Amino acid sequence: MGRGRRPAGEVRADVIHAVGHILLAEGLAGLTYERVARESGVSKATLYKAWASLGVLALDGYVHAVEDTLAFPDTGDIRADLAHQLHRFVTLMTTTPAGRLLPELIGRSQADPELSAAYRELYSSVRRRLATDRMAAAQRAGQIRDDVDVRVLVDQLWGAVYHRLLVPDEVVDHAFAEALLANVLDGVLVGESTR
Amino acid sequence: MGRGRRPAGEVRADVIHAVGHILLAEGLAGLTYERVARESGVSKATLYKAWASLGVLALDGYVHAVEDTLAFPDTGDIRADLAHQLHRFVTLMTTTPAGRLLPELIGRSQADPELSAAYRELYSSVRRRLATDRMAAAQRAGQIRDDVDVRVLVDQLWGAVYHRLLVPDEVVDHAFAEALLANVLDGVLVGESTR
Repeated sequence: MGRGRRPAGEVRADVIHAVGHILLAEGLAGLTYERVARESGVSKATLYKAWASLGVLALDGYVHAVEDTLAFPDTGDIRADLAHQLHRFVTLMTTTPAGRLLPELIGRSQADPELSAAYRELYSSVRRRLATDRMAAAQRAGQIRDDVDVRVLVDQLWGAVYHRLLVPDEVVDHAFAEALLANVLDGVLVGESTR
Repeated sequence: MGRGRRPAGEVRADVIHAVGHILLAEGLAGLTYERVARESGVSKATLYKAWASLGVLALDGYVHAVEDTLAFPDTGDIRADLAHQLHRFVTLMTTTPAGRLLPELIGRSQADPELSAAYRELYSSVRRRLATDRMAAAQRAGQIRDDVDVRVLVDQLWGAVYHRLLVPDEVVDHAFAEALLANVLDGVLVGESTR
């Protein structure tokens, strides 16, 4: 394996697949260039050339590994669709190494501007766009008010989950996901909600 | 200075004051045991004994330094009171080194269980309690619905700000603070808000 000349796209797909598999099974601790070379059949020289740091390699693999799990359905019902996605996100964060991997990468990126830029470019801005696209569609469908900046909702739903993962004063569970959604969809003030 | 025997409470107050002053002026980069000893007139030996790490010393000084700035008013109007506090929090995070200090400490704590425990014990759990106390009072006053878990609102207001500080895809400003508050107080769905 890895000796013949394979198309670049195929090589990349094999690497990304191997990285995603390692990360979701073992987290960042399991990720080394050696291990990825072995599992993907791609030489370490090629890996070093294409992915300058393990952090960048991890991000590239992770965003693809969770693409399907974290996809946003569009059934036309924004409450149901957000609930579906948010519960899958909470499951991912609480039952796989992803729940340690992402806080670890965010943590490291505070003192590493290159990793911070890579995190935003390869992961968080991609996920933000998918979320705001779905919520903007709900706005066009007349379900979310026009005056709402849906980018802020990203911080109040997924960002709130990251907050508890990064500063674990309180637990992340499915009741938390339900409460996050109910609060921003319905509002919490007495007399300003129809519930 | 620092030669005579001063009461422990006075020594502690001087140290805490010096640490808070350094942190709000220069952030974590300016904090050393030497500097604190010089500014507080307390011996380094005493500092090492009472504060086992610079992280713990920073947290202890910081929580006191921001106590007044981040106090929760209680005028009886929960919307106005939260807005007042949240805007002061945003000002603190965007115009002083606090906006780098806290993400830095949260970042380091991801790989440092002792710092993580100290952060929660000395800072985040203290701030959480002050916020939930004010919101629970609004619940008792019939302003926030009884079925709302006010602990979740901590993550959707202040936690959302930390999210943008830690992963700066989007800017933290006063418009963001306004939007955070409007979303959770009024809800964002069409037809489920009185706005």
